[in-house]
Amino acid sequence: MMKRFVASGLAIVLIGAMVAAAWSASESPSKYSHAGQLRHVVLFKFKDGTSAEDIAKVAKAFAALPAKIPQIAGFEWGTDCSVENRSQGFTHCFVLTFKTQKDRDEYLPHPEHKAFGKIVGPHLDKVLVIDYVVQE
Amino acid sequence: MMKRFVASGLAIVLIGAMVAAAWSASESPSKYSHAGQLRHVVLFKFKDGTSAEDIAKVAKAFAALPAKIPQIAGFEWGTDCSVENRSQGFTHCFVLTFKTQKDRDEYLPHPEHKAFGKIVGPHLDKVLVIDYVVQE
Repeated sequence: MMKRFVASGLAIVLIGAMVAAAWSASESPSKYSHAGQLRHVVLFKFKDGTSAEDIAKVAKAFAALPAKIPQIAGFEWGTDCSVENRSQGFTHCFVLTFKTQKDRDEYLPHPEHKAFGKIVGPHLDKVLVIDYVVQE
Repeated sequence: MMKRFVASGLAIVLIGAMVAAAWSASESPSKYSHAGQLRHVVLFKFKDGTSAEDIAKVAKAFAALPAKIPQIAGFEWGTDCSVENRSQGFTHCFVLTFKTQKDRDEYLPHPEHKAFGKIVGPHLDKVLVIDYVVQE
């Protein structure tokens, strides 16, 4: 009897924990707080005349970095689709996530990052980088 | 005996589900894909001489929008901590997430967004906006 009581109690606790975990997971794509993580926002404007092929090569090379540099905890990117005419010519946005500023500091001089710089550099007209630690 | 067996089995299934949910949740802050969502990246450079109080007021007013505008599915912000000297004077970065471009289109002319514009406008030296749909 006692064992069954304990087992039932355990099951109830587990169900509660599952509901909490599921709720947390369902919130994560939108409102889950990433407070404390560092976002590294990189904007590119390519030189006039850069071929679509070269631009695709750059995006692919950038997207290959997370597999080579373990300090990169998150990576996403896309091309400008804003409608306010305030993008100042920037067409590509890449957002890297680091768990700490130390990880960002190790990423910057990383040989694989440097090698990527040599791929993208010749094609860039402008680059803008802003980092921020996600506030509560 | 049967009931205890069922209870134990249930507990094992629940533990498995919990581990899966916890794993999913732990992945979400970093490598979880938000593919298809729209990120709305806003950079501010305040006019020289803008008081810390006014800047704090702007950040607070911006952070209040998600509670007033249901189309905003995610919101985060922070101040520049980059070390590459490529932020072009921008000091504040706000990233809003919308599930669709339609939600972004409804946000832009929203009266609460317009009201925020009146709060921040007088203090801005430069603003940059770039939107992107998160690529796979």
